[in-house]
Amino acid sequence: MRLKNKPWALPLIEANPQYVVTEPQQYRGKWQERFSQDQPLLIEIGMGKGRFITEMARRDPEHNYIGIEVQSTATGIALKKQLEAQLPNLQLVCGDGGDLTEMFAPGEVAGIFLNFSDPWPKKRHAKRRLTYKTFLKQYQTVIAETGHLEFKTDNRGLFEYSLASMNNYGMVFDQVWLDLHDSEEAVDNVMTEYEEKFSKKGQPIYKVTAHFAK
Amino acid sequence: MRLKNKPWALPLIEANPQYVVTEPQQYRGKWQERFSQDQPLLIEIGMGKGRFITEMARRDPEHNYIGIEVQSTATGIALKKQLEAQLPNLQLVCGDGGDLTEMFAPGEVAGIFLNFSDPWPKKRHAKRRLTYKTFLKQYQTVIAETGHLEFKTDNRGLFEYSLASMNNYGMVFDQVWLDLHDSEEAVDNVMTEYEEKFSKKGQPIYKVTAHFAK
Ligand SMILES: C[S@@+](CC[C@H](N)C(=O)[O-])C[C@H]1O[C@@H](n2cnc3c(N)ncnc32)[C@H](O)[C@@H]1O
Ligand SMILES: C[S@@+](CC[C@H](N)C(=O)[O-])C[C@H]1O[C@@H](n2cnc3c(N)ncnc32)[C@H](O)[C@@H]1O
Repeated sequence: MRLKNKPWALPLIEANPQYVVTEPQQYRGKWQERFSQDQPLLIEIGMGKGRFITEMARRDPEHNYIGIEVQSTATGIALKKQLEAQLPNLQLVCGDGGDLTEMFAPGEVAGIFLNFSDPWPKKRHAKRRLTYKTFLKQYQTVIAETGHLEFKTDNRGLFEYSLASMNNYGMVFDQVWLDLHDSEEAVDNVMTEYEEKFSKKGQPIYKVTAHFAK
Repeated sequence: MRLKNKPWALPLIEANPQYVVTEPQQYRGKWQERFSQDQPLLIEIGMGKGRFITEMARRDPEHNYIGIEVQSTATGIALKKQLEAQLPNLQLVCGDGGDLTEMFAPGEVAGIFLNFSDPWPKKRHAKRRLTYKTFLKQYQTVIAETGHLEFKTDNRGLFEYSLASMNNYGMVFDQVWLDLHDSEEAVDNVMTEYEEKFSKKGQPIYKVTAHFAK
């Protein structure tokens, strides 16, 4: 989803290099330098307006979090939240999740979140889906041996595709939810902006957690 | 689901050995003898009242079909359908799908259907689910190299469990449907008794097709 471009976003990002990284390749292999404490790193690709990653970082001070977003307007909105929250364990990246292996060294990441990723419903656009095999290969490279992938979406077609794609790639499923908000895990679930919107319409939220076979 | 026992069922089964096999071990490795033509064999475990397997056999004369059901009353109801239809490519077995490797020789089966299997929702009953790993192991043994498993259900908990179980076992997903009746494949879909009932209530029907890695 493209947001309308806000003219204030880029200047705000440039004025806050303590929170937003615009040249993430520079930190490859040394992301811990950006945080006050050395602790396992969890990243979200396509964080949108940043509600999920900000709330996760707040609730869970024992991990470092990085929210990655390609749109500067969305990144700017996420930055506003962090300027309020001032969380020492949260950094934002304005950049493309397709360059993951240039941003992170092998094994540098303990876990990856994908939330309500763009569905790219047309078959000829399958390669752009964040669960297409070329993306999975990048996740496998940067994720540590014990690391996990968590993927949530309301989009049926994308979830059907992603289950098959992840399975075919050889990923091991930890758990599957076909109506997350009607499950025991709903209580601890941190909602994203999209999740709030679509679950209010009564659509089921799908989720899978998985890891790469050793 | 247990049907109320009908006293006519067992006598009807016994009077029709041309259609119902009650000692399936006797045909292990030689099921083709039961059919007028030698052709790939597809089986359903837990056929219930037999609507699905009868209709499949009618539509698809180029496969041999066997419907397996542990309850004699359900088998009797399925038998009545076959007494009407007289399909040369359909046989019924009154027996336990848990004994599959005693019923079929390795590779004797080209495909297995599981439709609306009993959900066994309690965790301590997980071993009874027809997608528990001990069952998958039996399917793997009797299914030919090119063979497939097809599983349909309306039961969310069972489908969540089954996706993870089949994935963890190392099965390869061909396709996943999270609302089969709202998909392109709905036109050719043969409905079961349960499917008709639950889809009428507006519940989504889940389906997965998968095979064992070579
Ligand atoms: C549908 S929105 C969901 C936003 C948020 N995760 C939520 O659940 O509310 C998808 C977001 O992913 C971003 N995105 C898509 N592809 C990306 C990529 N390759 N790298 C980084 N961000 C990406 C889009 O710009 C958009 O903001
Ligand atoms: C919920 S019903 C579904 C019947 C039918 N497949 C349908 O979709 O309408 C499940 C059926 O599976 C049968 N069943 C359960 N476990 C079985 C087993 N181990 N072997 C054979 N049949 C079994 C039950 O007796 C019951 O008739």
